Amino acid sequence: MYVGVDVGGTKIAVGLVDQDGQLLFQKSCPTRAERPAHEVIEDITVLIKKLVKESHKEMTDILGIGIGIPGMAEKDTGNVIECVNLGWKHVPLKRLMEKEFDKPVYIDNDASVAALAEYEIGSLKGADNSALITIGTGIGGGIIVNGKLHNGSHGIGCEIGHTIVGENFYDCSCGRNGCLETFASATALIRYTKKLIEETKEETIIIDKLEGNLDLLEAKTILDSAKEGDCVAVKAVNRFIKYLSIGLLNLINILDPEVIAIGGGVSKAGNYLLNLIEKNINNNKAFGDMEIAKITLARLGNEAGIVGAAMLCKHM
Amino acid sequence: MYVGVDVGGTKIAVGLVDQDGQLLFQKSCPTRAERPAHEVIEDITVLIKKLVKESHKEMTDILGIGIGIPGMAEKDTGNVIECVNLGWKHVPLKRLMEKEFDKPVYIDNDASVAALAEYEIGSLKGADNSALITIGTGIGGGIIVNGKLHNGSHGIGCEIGHTIVGENFYDCSCGRNGCLETFASATALIRYTKKLIEETKEETIIIDKLEGNLDLLEAKTILDSAKEGDCVAVKAVNRFIKYLSIGLLNLINILDPEVIAIGGGVSKAGNYLLNLIEKNINNNKAFGDMEIAKITLARLGNEAGIVGAAMLCKHM
Repeated sequence: MYVGVDVGGTKIAVGLVDQDGQLLFQKSCPTRAERPAHEVIEDITVLIKKLVKESHKEMTDILGIGIGIPGMAEKDTGNVIECVNLGWKHVPLKRLMEKEFDKPVYIDNDASVAALAEYEIGSLKGADNSALITIGTGIGGGIIVNGKLHNGSHGIGCEIGHTIVGENFYDCSCGRNGCLETFASATALIRYTKKLIEETKEETIIIDKLEGNLDLLEAKTILDSAKEGDCVAVKAVNRFIKYLSIGLLNLINILDPEVIAIGGGVSKAGNYLLNLIEKNINNNKAFGDMEIAKITLARLGNEAGIVGAAMLCKHM
Repeated sequence: MYVGVDVGGTKIAVGLVDQDGQLLFQKSCPTRAERPAHEVIEDITVLIKKLVKESHKEMTDILGIGIGIPGMAEKDTGNVIECVNLGWKHVPLKRLMEKEFDKPVYIDNDASVAALAEYEIGSLKGADNSALITIGTGIGGGIIVNGKLHNGSHGIGCEIGHTIVGENFYDCSCGRNGCLETFASATALIRYTKKLIEETKEETIIIDKLEGNLDLLEAKTILDSAKEGDCVAVKAVNRFIKYLSIGLLNLINILDPEVIAIGGGVSKAGNYLLNLIEKNINNNKAFGDMEIAKITLARLGNEAGIVGAAMLCKHM
């Protein structure tokens, strides 16, 4: 039995997970990320102890602890290099946790961990060469190669959101221009739609839906409006899909995976989104008659973070 | 002891290679690719038999035969999907060769095979997560993950030359626009330089070097002229390096390898090229203070094709 920890910007979730990836019991608390790292880590340890106690287990039942973080960690030392949302930089998370629990502790990026969960019990099951791309505020990714979660050599992991796919009207938070994330994240979709509305003054049902307040604009509103045939929304979604497809095709042309799953908040648009991606990819792939990766929707919800983190213990 | 076969557009080379990747003896003959596939394959079998005989070995000494092809092959069946330069499409190469020699035969893309050779005895030795990018007429690549040559799920292998990195003034041979190969191959460098010279009418020593005949333009002339400070050449090389760096950084942001080696004809520009790439990559990486892949020059020459092909037998 393993403990999986999902450290998010707003919430810490911990869970007991069995060898088959089944989530047996979970608990959570607010992250309050404005605090120093050591206070947040203290809360994680308290939460894990409560989890084990309340599920009527002993610490000796726990074979290891896996932690998914919204950032990068060094492969060998388990030192957190940086988590922008948490304000963490150079935090020796693995060492601190191993000292506290005297058990093996494994740390990885949250999108990588989610990919591992999809591989164990979700949409990537059985696909030994596959990838999960998460589309939300930003774009993240995790890669499975030969049945193992791929760890980069410098803790970068799969930063597909920062692959460059074109030139854009605004710069990425990483300081460069043209990152996939600035074309095909929820943030990017919202930003481009606002620009379209403000610049073209075209009529759009989006304005009605928001009762005139563009500050309330969410990716869902745009996707729903596009589904209803609204021209502004369709234009924005087409651009979003065009660049997302370039990003996916670049991944395909580098790794040629069997399956790519799409997860994250935007994937809630479901088959509508999937059909648009599939169509675009098939029209734009490099080798006309070659079979390429199947695109699918991620199957797991929020539990992916806990389950995948726990599965790090099994895969290491 | 293995036999390695390097099937090129102009030459077929075969060699005896020992377990450590040492090339012991080799032979070659012209490909004459205009002929039907079965005639070329017949020549390969004759050449292998001569090779074994002339090196005073027996067929029983040969543990397997590896073949590098300028195209794509299915992983499981070893069927060649397509080799454009050879005019091959759907050729059951593995089956034909195994029938002839009654030994295991392995087929892979020539750039993948070269990556394996660099990993065994060259610039990628010891780097279990690494890549070779070959820059010549086109751009190819091979990837090592966890000490194994990465094989895609649909025989695409590493087609990094067909990752999209921008918008270009001409389309790629694959039918799309923006492929890395159209920005950062020898062909691309020549094409852009010609365009610059024709459109800007700027003075350039390139014209003098070619005695006015732009049809003779080669990548080496442009790189040499840039080294001498010629403005047109510098402009063309800067653009070449800009997009090559985007391609390499995209690979880094997806796979985070330990080392990337640059091979192929263009890599003969050596440290001059390497320094330009390193500088550009360090100025444009996504995570300012993160360590990223070391860029280096491939160490092997033409023998990489034979050695890598032979090493397929060891790695399968």
